[in-house]
Amino acid sequence: MRGIYFDGKRAVYREDLPKPVPEQKESLIRVLMAAVCNTDKEILRGYRPDFKGVMGHEFVGVVEESPDASLIGKRVVGELNAACGKCVYCRTGRPTHCTSRRVLGMHDKDGCFAEYMTIDTDLLHAVPKELPTEKAIYTEPLAAAFEIMTQLSFTEDRNIAVLGDGRLAYCVVQAMNAEGHRVTVVGKHPEKLELFKPFADVTMEREKEGYEVVVEATGSPSGILQALEMVRKKGTIVLKSTYAGEVSLPFSQVAVNEISIVGSRCGPFVPALEALASGKAQFPDIKLFDMENFEEAFAFSGFKAGFFTE
Amino acid sequence: MRGIYFDGKRAVYREDLPKPVPEQKESLIRVLMAAVCNTDKEILRGYRPDFKGVMGHEFVGVVEESPDASLIGKRVVGELNAACGKCVYCRTGRPTHCTSRRVLGMHDKDGCFAEYMTIDTDLLHAVPKELPTEKAIYTEPLAAAFEIMTQLSFTEDRNIAVLGDGRLAYCVVQAMNAEGHRVTVVGKHPEKLELFKPFADVTMEREKEGYEVVVEATGSPSGILQALEMVRKKGTIVLKSTYAGEVSLPFSQVAVNEISIVGSRCGPFVPALEALASGKAQFPDIKLFDMENFEEAFAFSGFKAGFFTE
Repeated sequence: MRGIYFDGKRAVYREDLPKPVPEQKESLIRVLMAAVCNTDKEILRGYRPDFKGVMGHEFVGVVEESPDASLIGKRVVGELNAACGKCVYCRTGRPTHCTSRRVLGMHDKDGCFAEYMTIDTDLLHAVPKELPTEKAIYTEPLAAAFEIMTQLSFTEDRNIAVLGDGRLAYCVVQAMNAEGHRVTVVGKHPEKLELFKPFADVTMEREKEGYEVVVEATGSPSGILQALEMVRKKGTIVLKSTYAGEVSLPFSQVAVNEISIVGSRCGPFVPALEALASGKAQFPDIKLFDMENFEEAFAFSGFKAGFFTE
Repeated sequence: MRGIYFDGKRAVYREDLPKPVPEQKESLIRVLMAAVCNTDKEILRGYRPDFKGVMGHEFVGVVEESPDASLIGKRVVGELNAACGKCVYCRTGRPTHCTSRRVLGMHDKDGCFAEYMTIDTDLLHAVPKELPTEKAIYTEPLAAAFEIMTQLSFTEDRNIAVLGDGRLAYCVVQAMNAEGHRVTVVGKHPEKLELFKPFADVTMEREKEGYEVVVEATGSPSGILQALEMVRKKGTIVLKSTYAGEVSLPFSQVAVNEISIVGSRCGPFVPALEALASGKAQFPDIKLFDMENFEEAFAFSGFKAGFFTE
């Protein structure tokens, strides 16, 4: 079959990949559409030195074989992390943090940039009929943004800033907006901020009195330092960016000002699918490429690139 | 009057200090006993470059003059931070974070290493009769440890580590213990850990599966890095240490593992006084020096040094 394979050093388009065979608890998925995430590009930069295999983790597909007969023929999206079910994290309701998890297109498991893929059946979610594939493709990154709502309480009247004006920030705004939280987007690029205007207040200059919550979604190491300047004392910084390397921080300031810094990663698919199906979360059109032209897709500077996989 | 004065560079014992005159909302306190905190030593190392004045912020005294007649003649302890009542933090219930606060013996306000001091009457707490002065002197550092309970929920069955085996860690253990939370103290010094044995599990080797909560109380910049190695994914690090300088951290690890880092500083006096009065929190005897011999007190290597001030 056709697919995009990471050989440990670079991505290669191949037509000789074996069609995968599902393990006992897995389903076989025919991939309809797959999307490029920044993490895929980070893999090309050495973010996952141990990984070799088919790339990609954002997809919409059709179930062809499954131990759950009710799923066969259905359109589905799927979560990334296949958990062991035995470790301290699996035993305590944190399967996305399983110590021996396999991660789609990232760690010990082939991903979705291919005609076919396999995935633990437990990780699948049926896509509502009314939700088109080109919108359902945003489920995974939107779910990651919904994670914030499982971690923080927004019952008080708190002013919330989202720091960044890229795709990560956009997902956060859509999730917060769908839950009824009005946020202020603090960005650098007027042309990028335009995209946020229907959904949030936008600004290039931060509020002098600061924000109770700052969601750091710049994707850049300097974001945490900016967030620390913006957040109020006793306020909360949500860390969404991932990148290689370290950042130096004056931790006494965190202690003295009683700042909370909350790391946030993968999130719940169910509210994300609901928000997409109801139109409460809205996304620009994805730009699709043939897998042969994956280099163009990886280099695409618009909102989101993806692949036709049929 | 007699007192210990910081002249911007070093501490000096003086006998010519003017007896302070209380402002409108202040009380005049005759200091019975004062204690040395690590922060006082940090001031000698340049932690508060703008401060000049009488040092010290931990005290027990007797009210001699006050707008609150019911307090006159009573033994009291007092909070550090005199708030403006007007800024965004004062208006939203966070007076200890007031942007223009004056801090006893640290910022814009003479402290308690003297025969007399003045303090906002609102900041005073009467000491229960049954609580001796040499125990009540521990109220302020114990209150800071009680702050953790106002920030975290311990309703679940969470395993809690306190990292460090010094005075800061000891206060945390006493507060947690008084609230019924059994903790594990992870230290480096067998002789220091002895002091903790009646109140907690002690170890020099951390649990391999990690801890849900790690209270970083080493007082050292490397503590946060150790805490990051010890905390479970989706776990919480409470930052208690303050020090000059920065620490470099792999923040992607914080995001990917969904760690929370919670800064924690001054806390509530009421539960601290109650825990001391009931005996639920226990402390070693303080070692008292005459103010003239303040250099000995600052160099004291035992649990706690303080001053007779009469």
